[in-house]
Amino acid sequence: MERNILLTIQYDGTAYSGWQRQPNAVTVQGELERALKKICGGPVELQGTSRTDAGVHALGQRASFKGEFSIPTENIRRALNGILPPDIAIARVEEKPLEFHARFDAVGKTYRYQIDDSGVKDPFTDRYHYVVRRGLDEDLMRKAAEGIIGTHDFAAFQATGGQPRETTVRTITGLEVWREGHAVIFEVTGDGFLYHMVRIIAGTLVEAGQGKIPPEEIPAIVGSCDRERAGHTAPAHGLFLKQIYYNEDI
Amino acid sequence: MERNILLTIQYDGTAYSGWQRQPNAVTVQGELERALKKICGGPVELQGTSRTDAGVHALGQRASFKGEFSIPTENIRRALNGILPPDIAIARVEEKPLEFHARFDAVGKTYRYQIDDSGVKDPFTDRYHYVVRRGLDEDLMRKAAEGIIGTHDFAAFQATGGQPRETTVRTITGLEVWREGHAVIFEVTGDGFLYHMVRIIAGTLVEAGQGKIPPEEIPAIVGSCDRERAGHTAPAHGLFLKQIYYNEDI
Repeated sequence: MERNILLTIQYDGTAYSGWQRQPNAVTVQGELERALKKICGGPVELQGTSRTDAGVHALGQRASFKGEFSIPTENIRRALNGILPPDIAIARVEEKPLEFHARFDAVGKTYRYQIDDSGVKDPFTDRYHYVVRRGLDEDLMRKAAEGIIGTHDFAAFQATGGQPRETTVRTITGLEVWREGHAVIFEVTGDGFLYHMVRIIAGTLVEAGQGKIPPEEIPAIVGSCDRERAGHTAPAHGLFLKQIYYNEDI
Repeated sequence: MERNILLTIQYDGTAYSGWQRQPNAVTVQGELERALKKICGGPVELQGTSRTDAGVHALGQRASFKGEFSIPTENIRRALNGILPPDIAIARVEEKPLEFHARFDAVGKTYRYQIDDSGVKDPFTDRYHYVVRRGLDEDLMRKAAEGIIGTHDFAAFQATGGQPRETTVRTITGLEVWREGHAVIFEVTGDGFLYHMVRIIAGTLVEAGQGKIPPEEIPAIVGSCDRERAGHTAPAHGLFLKQIYYNEDI
């Protein structure tokens, strides 16, 4: 009997050329499909919710696959974790109705972005932070964030080169900024994100925190739909895909 | 005028074939000497305090070097951190009297060892923990630790293959075990450590925590001077060189 399995996946993206399977590169999807083939006894095609870029990490990526295979659902997690490399872990395995689709049924996502402005080089944490030189003013960043929340055309926050999209309108329901030890953290929740959108939000908030972009200009920058007016694209290694929401989760 | 500079160094040892320079391997000393050559304008020979093994991390390695060079001491840290790879950082730079030697003048060291017994695979923290399957009883580990503290012949806790030593007697002044989130941590302080000694202490404490070695047998195991009777050698990646002490620090 055909089954539909949903995985919740965590990974340190440092070593990977992103999520999506590629013929000549090591990717998270590629590693997972290789491990699934072993435990399912045949080729498996994973549907990932988010095509994270090279170097981006995940605390709660989701992906589903269908097939007829004998391994009980409750054994999949341990079996996969034993085969997968140490930087990819399965946190949860659920059986879903056959009509469920990990990507199309997702109604929202939360990303986390970490910026270290301490000026202290740290070999253990720098790999998970965008390291910036100047101390950031997180009050300015919080004010800038207010101009991003809401339903807007985010064309100014989209890099070229992604998948073609029907619309560049997205709804950001939450964007919180806070200081945590050596770092400024933000988490952004929305119904969807354009190509590099979170990293351009990060670059824009950093420039706001450095006094280069006045927070009160953010609404005009969003309104311009002009990529040149938003901030730079912050690096991938500060970014974590934190959570995916389905209707039942809300 | 000749100067004598003492560095305090942190590194994530994952990518390195240990501290000591080797002709055909990437080592921490090798990377540091390459960076020092650039900023000092000529070859520099570093004297490291502890020859950490491949995969061992450091929070407070120390190393000194002598020479005549023009860069002010207060600029060395930033210059080195800019050149060194992201997994090696200079925490502190001090000028010392010419007769000071980073290794010979060290009077003690603290190592930290991290063991994760949660059964939850974590792609972000497993690289810094010895991952063990069974839940450890940290009370048993604490009782076992009591039998290791003190001045003893630690031949039972020495692997073959290290530097020849005049004596295998060492004094362990502190060995504390505690639980911290998903992990059991121990920190051990002593006047010196034999080859793989901390990792054999780790393996022995893990076996005590799993009920395989009764804590009350530890004094007899130490007394036997028989490597076969102590526990296994725990992996390098759970080990951190935490601190080096010089007379002035105590």
